Amino acid sequence: MMVKQERAVRTRQILVRAAAESFARDGFALASLTMISRRAGVSTGALHFHFASKRALADAVLHEAAAALERTTCRADRAPDPLRALVEATHGLMDGIVGDAVVRAGFALSGDPARTRGDVDLRQQWQRWIERTLQRAEWEGRLAEGTSCAQIAPTVVAATVGFEVLGCRDPDWLTRRKIDRFWELMLPRLTDGATARG
Amino acid sequence: MMVKQERAVRTRQILVRAAAESFARDGFALASLTMISRRAGVSTGALHFHFASKRALADAVLHEAAAALERTTCRADRAPDPLRALVEATHGLMDGIVGDAVVRAGFALSGDPARTRGDVDLRQQWQRWIERTLQRAEWEGRLAEGTSCAQIAPTVVAATVGFEVLGCRDPDWLTRRKIDRFWELMLPRLTDGATARG
Repeated sequence: MMVKQERAVRTRQILVRAAAESFARDGFALASLTMISRRAGVSTGALHFHFASKRALADAVLHEAAAALERTTCRADRAPDPLRALVEATHGLMDGIVGDAVVRAGFALSGDPARTRGDVDLRQQWQRWIERTLQRAEWEGRLAEGTSCAQIAPTVVAATVGFEVLGCRDPDWLTRRKIDRFWELMLPRLTDGATARG
Repeated sequence: MMVKQERAVRTRQILVRAAAESFARDGFALASLTMISRRAGVSTGALHFHFASKRALADAVLHEAAAALERTTCRADRAPDPLRALVEATHGLMDGIVGDAVVRAGFALSGDPARTRGDVDLRQQWQRWIERTLQRAEWEGRLAEGTSCAQIAPTVVAATVGFEVLGCRDPDWLTRRKIDRFWELMLPRLTDGATARG
């Protein structure tokens, strides 16, 4: 009985991963359940046992992607200060997009008009974390005179979303050097060059 | 005869505009020819007379959007220096996305996995113009010591693409203030604060 349950959990995981690969490459509208079950090496009957619809599969992918993003930002929160947390989380996000089809699909689905919006939106989750972290930097007096979270956050969110969107199609956008360069341009402006580079 | 031709040209324009609204809102996969002809107030027969397929309609929208983007960047090229051209073109692009369904649809289609890639890609067109303009700024000695077009261009492209992507779903992202703030953060770093604010 135990073995059977374990096998069901494993099959579910394989299906979510196969679905993520399809969603990331083809978008929600073109991804097909037949192709996903074939890619997973699982019968369509087994797929339907686990997931009632393509929509249910997309929701499962999104929930896993949201959990992965949450892990990335939690890890970054342990950095010695919020500005370093931003840099670390950005690298973690981009590594996730390059290396993990679930994260890649999660962001693609969050921006896909073919999927009517659900409760999980990875871009919004990312935006909220950026805003919270910059707010913390402001409260701790780490931002340059005259700058504030409200002034900076849209630029940081837009730039990182831009790297994410471009990188989903071409991983060359997500090299460590490009992301480092972005922060090298931004950080001194945010901090007057004082705290963040130390 | 002339009147008939003029009417045909006008019908085609109405169809392209109706298609742009559908593509921008629903994405390529979900947009339907029936809905587009209804939105245009044109019979499906007339639609098929002008466009053989949804793909052909999408190509027409993309070509018009590419021409609009080209007009925006040409206008910006007349600015007194390349850094001001960047600022002006960014505002022009964002105004286009807010105010013109063809531009909005053009960018959405350029990033839509449901549309197999064609010859027009607005993000690539935008990226090439940014690179060309930053290259010109470098040649003219307008960039800060130690910076170069190659170092800066990816950040500028990613940030503007991010504003575009977020703004297609929520025009609040494209207010003049947010875009100005972006350039206020970036320009002093690119130029050492010397030339661009003058």
